[in-house]
Amino acid sequence: MAVEAAFAASGVSDAATRRTLAGRYLALRSRSTALAAPLSGEDMGAQTMEDVSPTKWHLAHTSWFWETFLLEPHLAGYEVFDPRFGFLFNSYYEALGERQPRAARGHITRPGVEHVRAYRAHVDAAMERLIERCEEGDLARLAALVETGIAHEEQHQELILTDIKHVLSVNPFGERYLDAAPPSARPGETAGWVEFAGGLETFGADGAGFAFDNEGPGHQAWLASFALASHCVTNGEYAQFIADGGYRNASLWLSDGWARVQAQARSMPLYWRGAPGEWREFTLHGEREIDMAAPVSHLDYFEASAFAEWTGYRLPEEREWELAARSADPASARAMSPDGWLHPCSADQGNLFGGVWQWTRSAYAPYPGYRAQSGAIGEYNGKFMCGQFVLKGGSALTAPGHVRASYRNFFPPDAQWQMTGLRLARDLPS
Amino acid sequence: MAVEAAFAASGVSDAATRRTLAGRYLALRSRSTALAAPLSGEDMGAQTMEDVSPTKWHLAHTSWFWETFLLEPHLAGYEVFDPRFGFLFNSYYEALGERQPRAARGHITRPGVEHVRAYRAHVDAAMERLIERCEEGDLARLAALVETGIAHEEQHQELILTDIKHVLSVNPFGERYLDAAPPSARPGETAGWVEFAGGLETFGADGAGFAFDNEGPGHQAWLASFALASHCVTNGEYAQFIADGGYRNASLWLSDGWARVQAQARSMPLYWRGAPGEWREFTLHGEREIDMAAPVSHLDYFEASAFAEWTGYRLPEEREWELAARSADPASARAMSPDGWLHPCSADQGNLFGGVWQWTRSAYAPYPGYRAQSGAIGEYNGKFMCGQFVLKGGSALTAPGHVRASYRNFFPPDAQWQMTGLRLARDLPS
Amino acid sequence: MAVEAAFAASGVSDAATRRTLAGRYLALRSRSTALAAPLSGEDMGAQTMEDVSPTKWHLAHTSWFWETFLLEPHLAGYEVFDPRFGFLFNSYYEALGERQPRAARGHITRPGVEHVRAYRAHVDAAMERLIERCEEGDLARLAALVETGIAHEEQHQELILTDIKHVLSVNPFGERYLDAAPPSARPGETAGWVEFAGGLETFGADGAGFAFDNEGPGHQAWLASFALASHCVTNGEYAQFIADGGYRNASLWLSDGWARVQAQARSMPLYWRGAPGEWREFTLHGEREIDMAAPVSHLDYFEASAFAEWTGYRLPEEREWELAARSADPASARAMSPDGWLHPCSADQGNLFGGVWQWTRSAYAPYPGYRAQSGAIGEYNGKFMCGQFVLKGGSALTAPGHVRASYRNFFPPDAQWQMTGLRLARDLPS
Amino acid sequence: MAVEAAFAASGVSDAATRRTLAGRYLALRSRSTALAAPLSGEDMGAQTMEDVSPTKWHLAHTSWFWETFLLEPHLAGYEVFDPRFGFLFNSYYEALGERQPRAARGHITRPGVEHVRAYRAHVDAAMERLIERCEEGDLARLAALVETGIAHEEQHQELILTDIKHVLSVNPFGERYLDAAPPSARPGETAGWVEFAGGLETFGADGAGFAFDNEGPGHQAWLASFALASHCVTNGEYAQFIADGGYRNASLWLSDGWARVQAQARSMPLYWRGAPGEWREFTLHGEREIDMAAPVSHLDYFEASAFAEWTGYRLPEEREWELAARSADPASARAMSPDGWLHPCSADQGNLFGGVWQWTRSAYAPYPGYRAQSGAIGEYNGKFMCGQFVLKGGSALTAPGHVRASYRNFFPPDAQWQMTGLRLARDLPS
Repeated sequence: MAVEAAFAASGVSDAATRRTLAGRYLALRSRSTALAAPLSGEDMGAQTMEDVSPTKWHLAHTSWFWETFLLEPHLAGYEVFDPRFGFLFNSYYEALGERQPRAARGHITRPGVEHVRAYRAHVDAAMERLIERCEEGDLARLAALVETGIAHEEQHQELILTDIKHVLSVNPFGERYLDAAPPSARPGETAGWVEFAGGLETFGADGAGFAFDNEGPGHQAWLASFALASHCVTNGEYAQFIADGGYRNASLWLSDGWARVQAQARSMPLYWRGAPGEWREFTLHGEREIDMAAPVSHLDYFEASAFAEWTGYRLPEEREWELAARSADPASARAMSPDGWLHPCSADQGNLFGGVWQWTRSAYAPYPGYRAQSGAIGEYNGKFMCGQFVLKGGSALTAPGHVRASYRNFFPPDAQWQMTGLRLARDLPS
Repeated sequence: MAVEAAFAASGVSDAATRRTLAGRYLALRSRSTALAAPLSGEDMGAQTMEDVSPTKWHLAHTSWFWETFLLEPHLAGYEVFDPRFGFLFNSYYEALGERQPRAARGHITRPGVEHVRAYRAHVDAAMERLIERCEEGDLARLAALVETGIAHEEQHQELILTDIKHVLSVNPFGERYLDAAPPSARPGETAGWVEFAGGLETFGADGAGFAFDNEGPGHQAWLASFALASHCVTNGEYAQFIADGGYRNASLWLSDGWARVQAQARSMPLYWRGAPGEWREFTLHGEREIDMAAPVSHLDYFEASAFAEWTGYRLPEEREWELAARSADPASARAMSPDGWLHPCSADQGNLFGGVWQWTRSAYAPYPGYRAQSGAIGEYNGKFMCGQFVLKGGSALTAPGHVRASYRNFFPPDAQWQMTGLRLARDLPS
Repeated sequence: MAVEAAFAASGVSDAATRRTLAGRYLALRSRSTALAAPLSGEDMGAQTMEDVSPTKWHLAHTSWFWETFLLEPHLAGYEVFDPRFGFLFNSYYEALGERQPRAARGHITRPGVEHVRAYRAHVDAAMERLIERCEEGDLARLAALVETGIAHEEQHQELILTDIKHVLSVNPFGERYLDAAPPSARPGETAGWVEFAGGLETFGADGAGFAFDNEGPGHQAWLASFALASHCVTNGEYAQFIADGGYRNASLWLSDGWARVQAQARSMPLYWRGAPGEWREFTLHGEREIDMAAPVSHLDYFEASAFAEWTGYRLPEEREWELAARSADPASARAMSPDGWLHPCSADQGNLFGGVWQWTRSAYAPYPGYRAQSGAIGEYNGKFMCGQFVLKGGSALTAPGHVRASYRNFFPPDAQWQMTGLRLARDLPS
Repeated sequence: MAVEAAFAASGVSDAATRRTLAGRYLALRSRSTALAAPLSGEDMGAQTMEDVSPTKWHLAHTSWFWETFLLEPHLAGYEVFDPRFGFLFNSYYEALGERQPRAARGHITRPGVEHVRAYRAHVDAAMERLIERCEEGDLARLAALVETGIAHEEQHQELILTDIKHVLSVNPFGERYLDAAPPSARPGETAGWVEFAGGLETFGADGAGFAFDNEGPGHQAWLASFALASHCVTNGEYAQFIADGGYRNASLWLSDGWARVQAQARSMPLYWRGAPGEWREFTLHGEREIDMAAPVSHLDYFEASAFAEWTGYRLPEEREWELAARSADPASARAMSPDGWLHPCSADQGNLFGGVWQWTRSAYAPYPGYRAQSGAIGEYNGKFMCGQFVLKGGSALTAPGHVRASYRNFFPPDAQWQMTGLRLARDLPS
């Protein structure tokens, strides 16, 4: 793994490496706990649809991940906190045996929240030992594993927020996750097109830092010339699409999307409320007036595709987006903090990273030469390469430092509960 | 209403009546709260199938019932605790407007448990005022309403236990509601038949005390001569039915029951675990060895009917059971207490009341001359007179003092999560 | 069986008995074939919902019934037409083994219609032999079996018409089974009430002629005094119920019925088309203007019950209807013929028999002392005694001579595709 | 459209063009009719799952296509056969209005088969007139439209066979479409790998002949070097995969595929019967012993993908297959005839075209620069570009002359009823 080599070659002292790892680990774990702070036991136990997992489950599952992939194989004498937790908190690793059905995660009332907190403390203490006592020769490998564990738990941090948003939204009276003041609105910037000549380019993770296996191997691909919008589509633009009859015009929609619109009588994004002219939306800060200059969010692929069709443009290919993002700095995105503003705002609108995940029209598929790793960890990404689309960018709920240009998020086309929007692309004459 | 007249004619002083009512009310409400004491917030919020309601919901709904049917119409100046609660905690009263879908009661994470406790306290304080300050001329009517409210909340007390049993049962590791020592087993008594000559008899509530509207009006009906078993069917007898291939013999089953057995691959009662020879069962006290001398429980109507068919006897008619129960004293049943043994035991086996609800083969239908009351309260019983069967008796979870010979419980034939069993009957030659 | 004794004691010569049986058999079989005459192969093969069976299936199943219950056990040397047909054309007899799933009867494209006709001819020839050659001593028993077979096939004759009506109705362009001129409308008669004193009466089949096992045993029951409407409810009366908001008023409906109205957005009987003021209905003679003086048909139990609630009266008990029908002659009903008018008309309206099956509020349950016969034939009626309601009378589709006062038809409360209506009842002061 | 220009430039006389078009049209239409010849009315009306359309529907829908896209707009004075047929026989064109629900195509018993034959004759006569009388200046455009209509009806010819195979298969007794002698088996050839260097290549339809819009536009793409198997995977190889536990090894399967295997307890391809060592399969010629040297068929994408994973190789990209097929001649495939052998055989095994459709791992997506045509015809392909995979090749059921290297067939990953198999690919070191 690339990270392993990088660590080995970095020349920093072992002690410094241990301190860095321990610090990164603890910061990560504290952040997860902090995300749960505003929630009651009932909030943390509820599962309001199959896609949603209870907060408590996320807190336990991430601990199980450290236990299973780091502590059990690498910390001599480690005692598993509760051997029955493997059944409850394994997400989808077939190689690791039977598990609680996904749709019934909300039925687990015991262990309770306090018990899960004890589980986290048990794992944290052991991880501290592992980082302290690991043989020098194993340190680079450990560091690589810790990076994977951090990236994994960061994904679940975003899911905690994503899922609790759904949980709170189905309470009939507009509950909120936390109070926060929205950033002051920026004056509207002029959206435009950035042009790219295309040609033969190299894509995918370059091995310089941590990346998931699905980001590699690096490979060449040919792109025709294209242009990418400088800004994400805004709520205001999406409101125009609705006003123009977008949800009633079959010719704009993919067949499956139109069937869905008809069957569910859909006429607006998941969390929009109200009616044209008086749109409001449910956010983690309660139900609010919509900021028309902010990126539209919680679109599924079908909505994003229909909107693009309506404009006469199209969704980008994932490699077009990656090419455009190479010169952008993920860290330039508005910093997300668990006690800050957890919703796209006008300040996010011109940044490739940080406002909403952006649907591409690329099906989630293996890169040329990709092979999943062997063993349970090989189930992390590869087995989902069917029926999903790649999203690029990152959202207002993404953990700081989590994303990069080669990052490939993926969801099925009917997923609405993720913080997903779009950025347009168009062909250039060749 | 009969209770009203009884109170009016009772000759007890108004002050004594008020004291009695207040005492009964407070005892009831304390018992509900006590039933929730062993449970966490997550336990109290979970809904593990559509039939199950969360404990929290029961605690709130019963308060809403007092608020809606007593406080709002009868306590001048009463301020509703939260006007939005009518939506959340109305169970099924169409006349009172829209409400939270039944299957999504477990999605209500807010109000939380503490908020519901405050709701209870608010209602209790107001009920205290109402009982204290009610005009003398209204006292008899108030007493009748309070009796209805008590009977209603007692039903929900049984449901709290019934429902939490299901919630705990789907946790994969055999959780328990509380620890308790089982009563010492009685030596097996000789089960026999009690014979009745039948003829023209009067059935239904006689107006002497509180009864639900579906227990009346009193009416005549003709019964052929019959015999009723002196004891409920035991776990041991039911285990013989299983061992004899009862679940594989279509000829014993009603058509709908057999379809269900096939579709669900059923081979034992809901909470049985294990296999022939080593049966165990899930109880509110955890998973335990089955007491073969105790009444079998958690049978649905189809199982009860197939068992009866297997014996060559039959289920009783509801009026046969009522006739037999006239001379029995409901108070003779083993007293159920929330911190006692919450499961049928051998001591319950020979008592008509108190072990398990006993399926009759009588469809739940209006008695001759029955008319539902007008207004919302008329929805209490009448609108369910279709597709359900009458059960008689009472169970180890029934609130003390709740049942009587004319009491008509009712559930659909596929209901298994109630504490239901059976007592055999047979025709006598005329 | 009662019929057996009656034949044995009748004193008619054996030869005459054989001629009578043969004649009745052949008339029956010809009528079944005639019912299929207006239909194409596609019409006869289609199954448009699970309750509907293809015409071809009915033609084959009735032949299988004769083969299985008469020819195989009683005709020495009988060769089964095709041993695989038992799988295809067994309806629901568990004792006779596995069978084609009910919902997939429309998937059987082979054997084709011609093959099924050959099957019928094969069975008919064998039945002719059986009736001719049966030992004298067995003739009475044979006669009883033939009566059962006739009654069975008559039921399927009604189902052929009932089911093909649904099949034709889902063709989008108003197809018709046959052209026929409607009977001339009668001037409206004054509907009134017929009063009955009640008391202890005897009910059920009296053993004088053929009856299904569920009509017995004869037994005593007590009825309070009541009145029964002299006429069935008409289309005109039902249209008033609709105009008065019957389908929007929850308080009129049973809980399950209201859920169904809401879920299916129902606002009229199954085959009604159009809107208030311009109602039309689909009939076997195509879509037509509704005759407001004819009995309303194709109501489910919930609609019948809600209508009765709206009037302030109620549905009758099955024994009330039977008592009233004792002095009526089933043969007085308008004769139904396969080439005649196959729809209720104003001439049917005052007759207890012959217009529409009339819902009673009696759940379909065993009479006191009822035991199902042993063997496969015991599955005919008994195993359905759960979740259904008794209907009395007979309809414009019922085979001539098929019904009597003790006849108990039964369907689930949500069945709409049968020709079902209602007749009101009310309590009399005692 | 490319065909238009080709015709215009071809230099053949108009009369010859008309003769050619008329001849091609009539041959096509006769072949459709011939395909239905072995079928009864019931066979032709049945719909045994939602994906299956009745033969009768295919015969009518293809006629409706000619009527709607050629006769109505281009033949002056054309009278539509029956204006109601647009509702019944529109497949999925939203722009053309409401239509019969797909799942209820089998409910249309009227019009009957004879009526549909009359519809075909009406359309054929009009098409003859159109081809004869079309203005010279419109002839090239007409020719292009006729080619589209032919390609469309050829697709439905394959569907007639594909769908009737399913219909016949669910008859419980192994019916057959027609008797035919299998081709004599070839001695097994040595399967090997054909290597390709990759690089920047041009893909998609080149405009030289008819192609569907989804085959264009021609565009450049970069391929890494790869090898493609010289033969399709055989039944024998697939039987080894089963014997090796392929259906029980989660690590081989995509997540959605494994869920499907579990939920449906799948252990073999759709039409396989029997058990390891004695495999048989249902074919259009009845149930037969499996030819182990013939290509395996009726795999869904998940099975194809799991098999490839088991071998350590992979499915090809669609452009890899296209590159390999450039030098192959589609006409070299075993000629398919409606009265010949309608099943893959060993003779098909080494041919890129003609045995089974071969799954690629390429999601069905627009080529760079693709825009759907405007109007109803634009719904032909574009709106399905989501959730499906591209298949290349052609099958033993494909109409002669129908396919080419750029042809893109597409189905969802769970489609099993198509004649689908696979050909392996692997990466070459670069």
